[in-house]
Amino acid sequence: MPESPDDVLREFALAPGFRARGTACGLKPSGRPDLALVWSEHACAAAGVFTTNRVAAAPVALDREVLAAHAGEVRAVVANAGCANACTGERGLVDARRMAALAAAAVGARPEQVLVLSTGVIGVPLDLGKVERGLVALMAPGAQDRAGDAARAILTTDTRPKVAAADVAFAGGHSVAIRGFAKGAGMIHPDMATMLAVVTTDLALAPAALQAALTAAVARSFNRISVDGDMSTNDTVLLLASGESGVRPDADGLAAFSTALERVCASLARQIARDGEGATRLVEVVVDGAPDERTAHTVADAIGRSLLVKTAIHGGDPNWGRVLAAAGACGVALDERRASLGFGPAGDAVRVVERGIRAGYDERAAAERLRRDPAVIHLTIGDGAGQATVWTCDLSAEYVSINADYTT
Amino acid sequence: MPESPDDVLREFALAPGFRARGTACGLKPSGRPDLALVWSEHACAAAGVFTTNRVAAAPVALDREVLAAHAGEVRAVVANAGCANACTGERGLVDARRMAALAAAAVGARPEQVLVLSTGVIGVPLDLGKVERGLVALMAPGAQDRAGDAARAILTTDTRPKVAAADVAFAGGHSVAIRGFAKGAGMIHPDMATMLAVVTTDLALAPAALQAALTAAVARSFNRISVDGDMSTNDTVLLLASGESGVRPDADGLAAFSTALERVCASLARQIARDGEGATRLVEVVVDGAPDERTAHTVADAIGRSLLVKTAIHGGDPNWGRVLAAAGACGVALDERRASLGFGPAGDAVRVVERGIRAGYDERAAAERLRRDPAVIHLTIGDGAGQATVWTCDLSAEYVSINADYTT
Repeated sequence: MPESPDDVLREFALAPGFRARGTACGLKPSGRPDLALVWSEHACAAAGVFTTNRVAAAPVALDREVLAAHAGEVRAVVANAGCANACTGERGLVDARRMAALAAAAVGARPEQVLVLSTGVIGVPLDLGKVERGLVALMAPGAQDRAGDAARAILTTDTRPKVAAADVAFAGGHSVAIRGFAKGAGMIHPDMATMLAVVTTDLALAPAALQAALTAAVARSFNRISVDGDMSTNDTVLLLASGESGVRPDADGLAAFSTALERVCASLARQIARDGEGATRLVEVVVDGAPDERTAHTVADAIGRSLLVKTAIHGGDPNWGRVLAAAGACGVALDERRASLGFGPAGDAVRVVERGIRAGYDERAAAERLRRDPAVIHLTIGDGAGQATVWTCDLSAEYVSINADYTT
Repeated sequence: MPESPDDVLREFALAPGFRARGTACGLKPSGRPDLALVWSEHACAAAGVFTTNRVAAAPVALDREVLAAHAGEVRAVVANAGCANACTGERGLVDARRMAALAAAAVGARPEQVLVLSTGVIGVPLDLGKVERGLVALMAPGAQDRAGDAARAILTTDTRPKVAAADVAFAGGHSVAIRGFAKGAGMIHPDMATMLAVVTTDLALAPAALQAALTAAVARSFNRISVDGDMSTNDTVLLLASGESGVRPDADGLAAFSTALERVCASLARQIARDGEGATRLVEVVVDGAPDERTAHTVADAIGRSLLVKTAIHGGDPNWGRVLAAAGACGVALDERRASLGFGPAGDAVRVVERGIRAGYDERAAAERLRRDPAVIHLTIGDGAGQATVWTCDLSAEYVSINADYTT
């Protein structure tokens, strides 16, 4: 489900064993949904990947504590938009703990069994009265479980919700579900979990194995996207396993689960990149021929971060010199005489550079490839086996308009 | 001369011993000036700082050769806009050598005595016929020396020429001149000489001392500015010393010269940042209280590169969380509880953050400080002695418009 139209969202459900609701509690001045609750009736295994920003928000600190001591007995995730609860000092941590306690009371859990997510403006204290009233509304008699409402309630400048699903078949006809939702449109850049995401599964897995699977999946999904190069204070990816399927995987089963998990995370990541602030299309940067994957990633990341590349794609301008210049500046020992560059998807690409110099190509055809969604840039830098793909978006004037006036 | 209005440019001269002219030779489709020649009747000492981009343009390779073997006998600099002569393979180097030879013939020098600068579109071969005809026009009978024309002829997306001057007094009533001009509006980022600049002086100094003075000055001027984080393939700063003043400095004199040289370079660098593509104002980021200058520079650079900070300034939006988030993400061991942040110049700043959390401040006053030119951001991160200033510009929708359609 790549695009999440309304009907897809209406039918979206988390993995068996999880319930979810969302509401508007007034944290967003617009009155749009801003409070989400995901919970399970039983204790779950949980894993998380967090921002590496030194200025980390209070909920990030709280979640790290919870996962360090209670990763095998998590019951709920409470999330709000409209306020990041970051740069809020001691009070911020007190507020995050209180938010966890309120959610714990709502679902009948202990406070240390609740993970907290916050996103929104930095430096403003959280209005806990609104959170409390929102939780009461969420649990009011007659309120319905709706995972789609939770997915909507964590959005900020996103233009659409992001959900993804995969199923993994196990021996004996068993099937395990992976269901996730995410948000993120600005302050998006690799080197950490780059936004908020909650992924659920009904597989039975211990916290350590769950964490290993999540860390590996994030490295090739959320850590491979960039919207603006800015790293948030709040970025968090959570993975919760209810065990409801009764399936305890062997090594092969765990590998199959990990592959499917990476697919779900990559789908959410691409949805975030495509929905980048002001973006009009997804950009896929593929670098291969590198000595190793890390080198390929460094080069692809530099290209994906370049404002000049992103604006050229926005304009459908095949200004390939900007791609080579970005690659050459990232610190990798690049030899331009070995570099080839194509615009467009495999099998239908226009080769614009051959061994470091302009190839004979049709300017209109090259421009047309950059106007496609996704716009694919494929740079080969040698004959090594290292390959990496990063996803980003074009940069439009709309990005500036969105960000020039966010708090005021 | 901070702003270079037309009358300032008309009176602009290089240091004694140097002549300069500029003309339009047709490399720019617009018909605007695109060829500059700076020369001396006698051999000069020369120094240069170049891009660290692995994808370096042909003229950069040529200039490195010239300075390695002939730094004490340079006679001329020939510069063109409209074509970067980068990513042009073997032919690019042949063309750059031919351009040097043509300029050498024009001024009666040997080809290895000529430095070459090119700027413009990457990946397109240089039209040497146009360069040759342009040089003929520059040296035609009746043609006048005009340094201002040279300063104009190296511009690309710049909206105004950049010139700077300083004079250094020496014992015995001697005075030495430093005169420079520069270009640069996009693909501007530190870690190298970030644009094209030619600085001249009539001091008598050996190439090694000249190089040391230039390297030090560039580190605190051109390497402290960023427009878009993109590193060009062509960036070059050249310093030529004619010796015409007859002044051979002692240690104190050399220190005075170095200080004045840094001032000239910093003025040119600030003019480049203020004239960043689409920019409406200069942004000055001051970081102090760091353990050392390098750390302060890393933090200031991260803030100056942040698109979210640059768009917030464009909108006059005192969204200070973005400043702390950018600082926290740059890898420095920042403790937000020790961070204080002010907007506005020293003595008239609005303190927005005190020890990591929001200070009591007037939102309108803070916004007003960000709308000033320059907009000053002052972050204190501890009580160390390390301090650094970087210059950048705000990011406007105009930046996107300029760059979405540059080659086409």
